[in-house]
Amino acid sequence: MKESLWESIQFVKKNSPLVHNITNYVVMNNTANALLAAGASPIMAHAHPEVTDMVAICSATVINIGTLDEYWVESMVQAAAKASQINKPWVLDPVGVGATNFRNATAAQLLVFKPTVIRGNASEIMALANVSLSKTKGVDSVHQSTEAIAAAQWLNQTTGSVVCVSGAVDVIVNDNSQIHLKNGHPLMQQVTGLGCTASALIGAFVGNNPSDPFIATAAAMALLSIAGEIAQRQSAGPGSLQVNLLDKLYNLTQEEFYHHLKLEEING
Amino acid sequence: MKESLWESIQFVKKNSPLVHNITNYVVMNNTANALLAAGASPIMAHAHPEVTDMVAICSATVINIGTLDEYWVESMVQAAAKASQINKPWVLDPVGVGATNFRNATAAQLLVFKPTVIRGNASEIMALANVSLSKTKGVDSVHQSTEAIAAAQWLNQTTGSVVCVSGAVDVIVNDNSQIHLKNGHPLMQQVTGLGCTASALIGAFVGNNPSDPFIATAAAMALLSIAGEIAQRQSAGPGSLQVNLLDKLYNLTQEEFYHHLKLEEING
Amino acid sequence: MKESLWESIQFVKKNSPLVHNITNYVVMNNTANALLAAGASPIMAHAHPEVTDMVAICSATVINIGTLDEYWVESMVQAAAKASQINKPWVLDPVGVGATNFRNATAAQLLVFKPTVIRGNASEIMALANVSLSKTKGVDSVHQSTEAIAAAQWLNQTTGSVVCVSGAVDVIVNDNSQIHLKNGHPLMQQVTGLGCTASALIGAFVGNNPSDPFIATAAAMALLSIAGEIAQRQSAGPGSLQVNLLDKLYNLTQEEFYHHLKLEEING
Repeated sequence: MKESLWESIQFVKKNSPLVHNITNYVVMNNTANALLAAGASPIMAHAHPEVTDMVAICSATVINIGTLDEYWVESMVQAAAKASQINKPWVLDPVGVGATNFRNATAAQLLVFKPTVIRGNASEIMALANVSLSKTKGVDSVHQSTEAIAAAQWLNQTTGSVVCVSGAVDVIVNDNSQIHLKNGHPLMQQVTGLGCTASALIGAFVGNNPSDPFIATAAAMALLSIAGEIAQRQSAGPGSLQVNLLDKLYNLTQEEFYHHLKLEEING
Repeated sequence: MKESLWESIQFVKKNSPLVHNITNYVVMNNTANALLAAGASPIMAHAHPEVTDMVAICSATVINIGTLDEYWVESMVQAAAKASQINKPWVLDPVGVGATNFRNATAAQLLVFKPTVIRGNASEIMALANVSLSKTKGVDSVHQSTEAIAAAQWLNQTTGSVVCVSGAVDVIVNDNSQIHLKNGHPLMQQVTGLGCTASALIGAFVGNNPSDPFIATAAAMALLSIAGEIAQRQSAGPGSLQVNLLDKLYNLTQEEFYHHLKLEEING
Repeated sequence: MKESLWESIQFVKKNSPLVHNITNYVVMNNTANALLAAGASPIMAHAHPEVTDMVAICSATVINIGTLDEYWVESMVQAAAKASQINKPWVLDPVGVGATNFRNATAAQLLVFKPTVIRGNASEIMALANVSLSKTKGVDSVHQSTEAIAAAQWLNQTTGSVVCVSGAVDVIVNDNSQIHLKNGHPLMQQVTGLGCTASALIGAFVGNNPSDPFIATAAAMALLSIAGEIAQRQSAGPGSLQVNLLDKLYNLTQEEFYHHLKLEEING
């Protein structure tokens, strides 16, 4: 497994897939920088006259509902419909779903187009699956990722999407398989948008390897969480962590990757 | 005083209040990171179908007119009206008021809903109070904060808002009391959005302590300006200051806070 | 030449020109910080009710089509028309032109108002000149800047704009003159928005020196690329480069500037 994850990481650097992002205002800069640091090529575009053109040009589309409004929702729906129609991989990041009816309705509209991958924290995945009526606490999670496994499995069965629940343990669910990743560091939660960055990286990896979104998702999550774990050691707080994380996404070595990877596969 | 300020800072870290921001595109990332570093939990939302829901869910709403347009103005008005109606604390940051008629009209519309706290630089507070017809120089201030005290007092009397004029000296005005804070460093002006960050932090503090917005505002301003002052010493320029400031918001100690605080209370 | 470039840099710090930006969401924070670090004063504004007022107030307007939509295109057209009408310098950054018909149509609409300066990478300048039908690879360039010189000259003759093709060599074209700048470092391409930052800085310099946009453009490009080149040496990757670059824009010395400048003038 570790070899195929590292290969995926190298393959993104080599191919530099173009990743189309319809994402929120808060994280656009971070996610663009994280994609560049990992070797991918980001483009942000949401205008109705061009959004489906961008889906067609790019290797994958990432849709993140963090700062949606009616115009952006229409952009997202058009993009998801196009991706579904032309069989382009796309990633859904349902930021803050559960917090308002508008977010719930938007997420439901997008789910129809069967995302290739869904990534959220436990509260979001549970809200998305309607398994829980628990109140989402804004964009942060009040649940452990492992609490959301049943919801993730239900979503996977319903939509066919690979589902990633990120948290202290990142759980990636597909069919009867799970990957549990135990990398990362709690300080990463004090940096805004690292969940959104995870989704963007998944977009790059799944765009580069559309035939295996399960491994692509695991590779993206492993890259980010290991880079964050190492970067944290050099960081006095969340400000320097954000900076050091970009550096480490850029210069992570195979040795560091293999040394830090804490991954468990669960089948059946 | 210093004890109650430090207590406020600890109380935010403990409660992690959810802070709703309708703010400008330039600073969304910074302000989200500053809120997280201080222990609060940020959410950015402006869509008409959800903006009043967000006001209701959150501890406080921060409205910043930095990059407004007609849709966003309507979001701001709906949010301010809702906050006023359900008695939720809200903060107004009238960025660039005085520069255009559109900003003046928007600020006037929002003032009707009596912000809990208003924070601006001297030029903005003077423009807001119509005390001065001086031309605002964009988003930077051409006036000393102490020149705007009369304007701040007039605004406080008219709206009931605690008014904070930030500058080399931060002046906080309420009824017959003033707090003058002499912390911070001039290099902070070379980092974009630290005024907006101040307003966001005030939102966290006033959301956490709605019964005393005067102290809440002083605590937020003291935290930011002391963190900036200390961070500056480790910084080669504005780039590293932005990073070190987030670290210091996160790891400021009581000893550092007490050692650096330069505060004067003026009554009557 | 080097003396007049350094003079321009000092003159921006002294005058602190107000620069109006209609730019993309991804880079607003970076470009505002870069303008501040270089001594200019940024303002971002796009609302129809105020956008022409901002053009009138500011020293220059920078229009960047990175994340355009119909509303923003109208803002851009209004701003360009106003700048042209009142003879204010304005800069066009045609991000991603060539990628979609919408971007091509928007760029064509804006060209009518004859930008003072156009800055793009080789692919963008070639797409803009219609010289090439090559597919733009998103916002990154697949061409060397020197391949775009004929396109830049054609644009210069047609619109009267100074044209800057940025890349490993930055080529600045006006009438029968060219300046070739060989500063910078490849790692700068892994930081999002440094092209947009270049355009914003050109705005500051041309706003400050509207009578010589050729020299103003060269000064802005030399400042950024030399600052990036020096900052890169202290950087472990693109995260720290972004930070160190802002510091170096702020504290670059005359000695450093003269020592690093690699500039060639070509006439006739």
